Amino acid sequence: RILAAIEEALSPSKDMAGQRVLITAGGTREAIDPVRYITNRSSGKMGYALAQEALRRGAQVTLVTAPTGLEIPAGVEAVMVESAEEMRRAVLERFERVDVVVKAAAVADYRPLIQQDQKLKKKTDRLLLEMVKNPDILAELGQKKDRQVLVGFAAETNDVETYALDKLGRKNLDLMVANDVTQPGAGFGTDTNIVTIFNRQGDKEKLNLMSKTEVARRIFDKVIEILSARV
Amino acid sequence: RILAAIEEALSPSKDMAGQRVLITAGGTREAIDPVRYITNRSSGKMGYALAQEALRRGAQVTLVTAPTGLEIPAGVEAVMVESAEEMRRAVLERFERVDVVVKAAAVADYRPLIQQDQKLKKKTDRLLLEMVKNPDILAELGQKKDRQVLVGFAAETNDVETYALDKLGRKNLDLMVANDVTQPGAGFGTDTNIVTIFNRQGDKEKLNLMSKTEVARRIFDKVIEILSARV
Repeated sequence: RILAAIEEALSPSKDMAGQRVLITAGGTREAIDPVRYITNRSSGKMGYALAQEALRRGAQVTLVTAPTGLEIPAGVEAVMVESAEEMRRAVLERFERVDVVVKAAAVADYRPLIQQDQKLKKKTDRLLLEMVKNPDILAELGQKKDRQVLVGFAAETNDVETYALDKLGRKNLDLMVANDVTQPGAGFGTDTNIVTIFNRQGDKEKLNLMSKTEVARRIFDKVIEILSARV
Repeated sequence: RILAAIEEALSPSKDMAGQRVLITAGGTREAIDPVRYITNRSSGKMGYALAQEALRRGAQVTLVTAPTGLEIPAGVEAVMVESAEEMRRAVLERFERVDVVVKAAAVADYRPLIQQDQKLKKKTDRLLLEMVKNPDILAELGQKKDRQVLVGFAAETNDVETYALDKLGRKNLDLMVANDVTQPGAGFGTDTNIVTIFNRQGDKEKLNLMSKTEVARRIFDKVIEILSARV
């Protein structure tokens, strides 16, 4: 087993050679004014691990990424975005040309209705920030897709399975990776994750705590299964 | 001049030996729910450069810092905080024991009135986020101070000098460092800054584009002047 692992590391099976994979990563930033914005606790680590793993398996990788503190993996085509709307445009422009899309980014559900040109002054004791819903990129891709394998993520703090299954069906996904971000070692900022992977047939695989690299491996194993079953 | 610079680098004048300096850095995070928060574009670089410079001059340095991607300088006592309220408590607890306070952090002016325990679901097309004013830490320190030298920062996008002078007086500061964050090379995220330093006598010194390390040096030169004039 050790020998097999070394052999694999030295000469990995390029089982995704020829596949064009688009991955989104990071937490989008929704501007309130030139200085302030709304964002979320996504570190980008899961998305970057996915990009690295797809690359290792021989895929041609595009990473559409919101700001993170991480380095872009060498060999990846990176597209830097900030807001959900910018991410949406970057993904839609490329969607027809790709075979697999993994949406690991934490896209803000709402953005401020108005983005001020100048820094807001704190005059009043209270402030009402009017927010509007952002486009649901994943649902839009689910409607548009023909051959593409579409993988979504659900980061929840409660009723993880219910929300995950609902999103899988409603958004027409092939796989849904769900994690409870309240568990220690899971979700935002950590190098590890605890996820359950759901497919369209209603199967679920609950994985133990493992590195995000290992989670990425398991996800692409399932993507390959789906692609193989189609041929 | 070159020889003097080398000499200074090798054996710096410890002109702040015995001084206890508290520096705040980074942009505070104001939680909307367990996943989402409001923050700002502060990178923490100016605050960390100040901590490094005070240390180099022999001061005993406490850095009260909101999350940044930066490493805590060795030799600095670091206090990690997230929200404005956490920063306020950390600073107030230590205020009586310090001689100099430099508030380089970008503290959120407003926070959500309610912090949800669970991740908000995106049910409605619109969302009104009710925000309340955060405590003004700098003004509170200005009221409390006796011997402390108090240095504030103003990051503005317009009418920089007007706002800076207003804050200097109103908050009872000794120095105000103002920068126009819309200028290239100034403000958030960059390694350089373009600032004007105002004092209580109404003098202003407009500095050219320089590294944040050099800006830190100029600020402490002025702090030393104030401390020396008192003796």
